[in-house]
Amino acid sequence: MEKLSKLATLVRHYILACSTQAGSGHPTSSLSATELMVALLFGGIFRYDADEPQHPNNDRLIFSKGHASPLLYSLWAAAGRLSEEDLMTYRTFGSPLEGHPTVAFPYVDAATGSLGQGLAIGVGMALNAKYLDRLPYRTYVLVGDGEMAEGSQWEAIQLAAHYRLDNLIGVLDVNRLGQRGPTMYGHDLEAYERRLSAFGWETIVIDGHSFPQILDAYQRARSVSGRPVMIIARTIKGKGVSFLEDKNGWHGKALNREEFERALAELGEVDKTVHAEILTPEDFYPEERKPASIEEMQYPRGRAVATRDAYGRALKRIYPQYPLLVSLDGEVSNSTKAEIFREAYPDRFFEMYIAEQNMVGVALGLAYRNKIPFVSTFAAFLTRAFDQIRMSQYSEGNIKFVGSHAGVAIGEDGPSQMGLEDIAMFRTILDGVVLYPADAVATEKLVEEAARHHGIVYMRTTRGTTPVIYSPNEPFPIGGSKVLRKSDGDAVTLIGAGVTLHEALAAYAELRREGIFSTIIDLYSIKPIDGGTLRKAAQRTRAVLTVEDHFAEGGIGEAVRSALAGEFVPVHSLAVRRKPRSASPEKLLDYEEISRAAIVRKVKECLGDATCALRAPRAVGGSR
Amino acid sequence: MEKLSKLATLVRHYILACSTQAGSGHPTSSLSATELMVALLFGGIFRYDADEPQHPNNDRLIFSKGHASPLLYSLWAAAGRLSEEDLMTYRTFGSPLEGHPTVAFPYVDAATGSLGQGLAIGVGMALNAKYLDRLPYRTYVLVGDGEMAEGSQWEAIQLAAHYRLDNLIGVLDVNRLGQRGPTMYGHDLEAYERRLSAFGWETIVIDGHSFPQILDAYQRARSVSGRPVMIIARTIKGKGVSFLEDKNGWHGKALNREEFERALAELGEVDKTVHAEILTPEDFYPEERKPASIEEMQYPRGRAVATRDAYGRALKRIYPQYPLLVSLDGEVSNSTKAEIFREAYPDRFFEMYIAEQNMVGVALGLAYRNKIPFVSTFAAFLTRAFDQIRMSQYSEGNIKFVGSHAGVAIGEDGPSQMGLEDIAMFRTILDGVVLYPADAVATEKLVEEAARHHGIVYMRTTRGTTPVIYSPNEPFPIGGSKVLRKSDGDAVTLIGAGVTLHEALAAYAELRREGIFSTIIDLYSIKPIDGGTLRKAAQRTRAVLTVEDHFAEGGIGEAVRSALAGEFVPVHSLAVRRKPRSASPEKLLDYEEISRAAIVRKVKECLGDATCALRAPRAVGGSR
Repeated sequence: MEKLSKLATLVRHYILACSTQAGSGHPTSSLSATELMVALLFGGIFRYDADEPQHPNNDRLIFSKGHASPLLYSLWAAAGRLSEEDLMTYRTFGSPLEGHPTVAFPYVDAATGSLGQGLAIGVGMALNAKYLDRLPYRTYVLVGDGEMAEGSQWEAIQLAAHYRLDNLIGVLDVNRLGQRGPTMYGHDLEAYERRLSAFGWETIVIDGHSFPQILDAYQRARSVSGRPVMIIARTIKGKGVSFLEDKNGWHGKALNREEFERALAELGEVDKTVHAEILTPEDFYPEERKPASIEEMQYPRGRAVATRDAYGRALKRIYPQYPLLVSLDGEVSNSTKAEIFREAYPDRFFEMYIAEQNMVGVALGLAYRNKIPFVSTFAAFLTRAFDQIRMSQYSEGNIKFVGSHAGVAIGEDGPSQMGLEDIAMFRTILDGVVLYPADAVATEKLVEEAARHHGIVYMRTTRGTTPVIYSPNEPFPIGGSKVLRKSDGDAVTLIGAGVTLHEALAAYAELRREGIFSTIIDLYSIKPIDGGTLRKAAQRTRAVLTVEDHFAEGGIGEAVRSALAGEFVPVHSLAVRRKPRSASPEKLLDYEEISRAAIVRKVKECLGDATCALRAPRAVGGSR
Repeated sequence: MEKLSKLATLVRHYILACSTQAGSGHPTSSLSATELMVALLFGGIFRYDADEPQHPNNDRLIFSKGHASPLLYSLWAAAGRLSEEDLMTYRTFGSPLEGHPTVAFPYVDAATGSLGQGLAIGVGMALNAKYLDRLPYRTYVLVGDGEMAEGSQWEAIQLAAHYRLDNLIGVLDVNRLGQRGPTMYGHDLEAYERRLSAFGWETIVIDGHSFPQILDAYQRARSVSGRPVMIIARTIKGKGVSFLEDKNGWHGKALNREEFERALAELGEVDKTVHAEILTPEDFYPEERKPASIEEMQYPRGRAVATRDAYGRALKRIYPQYPLLVSLDGEVSNSTKAEIFREAYPDRFFEMYIAEQNMVGVALGLAYRNKIPFVSTFAAFLTRAFDQIRMSQYSEGNIKFVGSHAGVAIGEDGPSQMGLEDIAMFRTILDGVVLYPADAVATEKLVEEAARHHGIVYMRTTRGTTPVIYSPNEPFPIGGSKVLRKSDGDAVTLIGAGVTLHEALAAYAELRREGIFSTIIDLYSIKPIDGGTLRKAAQRTRAVLTVEDHFAEGGIGEAVRSALAGEFVPVHSLAVRRKPRSASPEKLLDYEEISRAAIVRKVKECLGDATCALRAPRAVGGSR
């Protein structure tokens, strides 16, 4: 106990020192959780081989309250894994010690800082331990009281209970104060206890600054069976420094030098020689799963198949070769067709119910434990998890998102169910991949490409059927495109993807009858985009016309314009520009002017306008 | 009771008829809630003047389970407000009877269909009744059991209890079956009761097909004081048709003609003459609040003021003239500076805690009750509510979103706190407005423009200070822009907004010293965009360069490219293209190549490249 107290003092010293040095950060939110974390790491509870952070049987620790990063880094400094000099680089350019934890720091499992996301990630890691790797490691999540207001926390809480995750231990740091003042429940610990118990969790209420109570709580937590545990700890924000303790107005503020000196005087003697030891884990590994060969797909050309169907089939078909693959779905697997995989490999499928934020967090947790999660729901409902998707890029998450029911082509169900901003959303992800296959073959190929690619991939699928247009041997590399029609006299380049590719093909035939020839490009990879092919086509034709079943902003039209920014070619865009209604898919494609008829009209219009005329001298000629 | 039974049979008949006619829809999810809604509307509970749907004292009803739209429309058909002929237009083009309810139908308060959003909207309406309009109307929300998995529901539940909304009555239709199978808790009504009670709600558990129990529950619910009430009703999905009852596999499926005839036979005699009466409300109106004149703002040119500060001041300053204005904030009002308004008008401010989805739903509820809600949090955290934001456009929501802490310019806090995809997100909103002021004057003016504009407006504010560059008389119409520098010999057009405008101005000075002149445009209105001004500038200069503190995709660069799609001008874009880090704002602007130095470099580079040379003959000349 005495050693733990000394370590707590040392950690407090580091917290104050690094944040004062940086001139920013959250020392008070770190001080409240100091004993909780010192006891966990150095009190013989946590098992972690710091020489091998990726050891599959390491316990996991997620700082859901990511702003307590000074505490996180200070713990590792106390553990001798970070020099004082390195600690003092906190929040400076190039340092892995960022303002909120990111995976730049080797002992961080997932980037946090947007509140309410850590429990879901922990659920993913705990699911992995219990149902996939079948390893005895435990997952600990440090949770702030303020972030318990986020619904995503309750999604994670309900799912953890549903899956009986007794290897998941939450540590709730109830320090009473949020950023701008008191939290909703203040120091009413019973409020949390009542809610968590009702949701099926074991709860242990303690004084979060008492080492005996904390250690006892961890011991009890580890013996609970069949349910997750939340240790609900009453703590004092700013604990250990009298002028910070339980005071509003100190959130996210570093001490100045003078305040820092005063605070140090209060901490008393700091013993830098105290030896902090973390237990090592048992050297267990998950059962090795060897990739096996897989069957070829079979799709006769011309057969009508929905790409969402091809998605489900592809998952099932490729699984033997990608045995780390896992499927998560938000209670719509019969629509996204993840059910095809679920029925074949029920142990590799997890029902996430109607809770998309948690689903993405769980996927990130699984990805970090070396799995390849495919996450599916309606494209529209992935917007629910934009914050989690955004954050997963800072965790270098290897997650595959699949959004079905894209665009107005879903028809009668109406706009609430139509994914019309999903391309824009996923295009913003740095290094993200955005795929949109037009037929079953492309879908199957791209599902495999997605599984093989390390990083965030989004694939958009279609509710209705489209005819198979590719042969099973056709390769679909990420970043590629397909030129489906091309001749010397092409007047215009038509670019479509998914359903609009088929509209473009139909328009091609009609225009050809009138002597107007077009180049047709299937832009199945919207990001990265095949700039080379687009530029060549743009240079050969008088105008470019993109057609997409998506809002104009951030979609295919803008992606193509960016790719062609250096070309002197008019890029026209047909996209969803009117509030969609409930009606048949054909009617809606017409209404939004993204149908074959609209394409034909638009081609004629742009070949007739002044900009196109300007362009004419550089083109080979429009008809023959 | 007999009359209610007859009405239930009639409503069931209509449900089946309209969905079979449409060939799609959700009859089984409608049948489970039939008695619950028939009793509410026609059992002397609900008070609503259907001749005046906007009567301020009408009770409100939200179908959070929007897929039960056949029930909603059938109720109004039974009430004589919709002819059978009109009912049969369900899900056809141009009909106000869309697949999921939208405001095209006059008795719909808010578009639903993305699950888990209705309770939050109800909280907004109930908050309005209790704290703003001070009217006795009640708000009823029909909730599905499947959607209780959404965390947003629990956000609404906790906030409703916090604000003691005893005028909010939820009706939970526990029909046990979701889309692809059983819900998490099936018919375990106690599971819901336990959770809701723990969150501070009054719960009443009933058989949802027993009129006496339902009517009794409504009566009891209306007498509860100090807390919201959830009526938890055990129901049977597909109730009334033996081959549908409690059967999996019937979600979202209409009966075919043969099945329809069989179902009708089971319903028995349908009495179309039965008179359904809805009570009318007391003719109360909220106290009228007359607009008063407001003070002029005062900002000396050159003073350093953060636009987030100007936002808070503007809200406070304009409030007397816009007395319907309300401010909501997600526990960061000391950062967004909504606190300036809160301190001045505490009765018009509602703390929403760290629960952004619910915050947006509440705003929609308030907007529908005629308020002008300003919703603020960090720009990054608005991504949390993208689904709610997306849906609010289908409700024609009049909501003003304000995202502070935009871009890498926030500095040390790191990427989790940086809004880098907010412009892309809000640009996808049809008819949405996206504003990004560069100084305090522009901010104040645009806050007022936003208050005056009916519809969805997003404003991006900056953490750090920027110098005041505009005079207080300068107008800032939505859709406008400001040409700040311009001369005949301009080589390039530089377009910035917010912090990057100041970088562009600094670059201008440096380039000018080297004899390179630029046109500088402040693109404070990113959507709608001032295409006319942009085109004129593009025609006068050899290249266009946009600079933005936002990811490249969907941002200012792509907006400008779309606006200039018809112009033969290269549009270069400087944007955030590398994973941001923790560091000082200046360091990060440099790192991302959106600083003054990066602009100078890029201008020289593009004036030197081949595309620009091609363009040269059309330009007036690059220097003097």
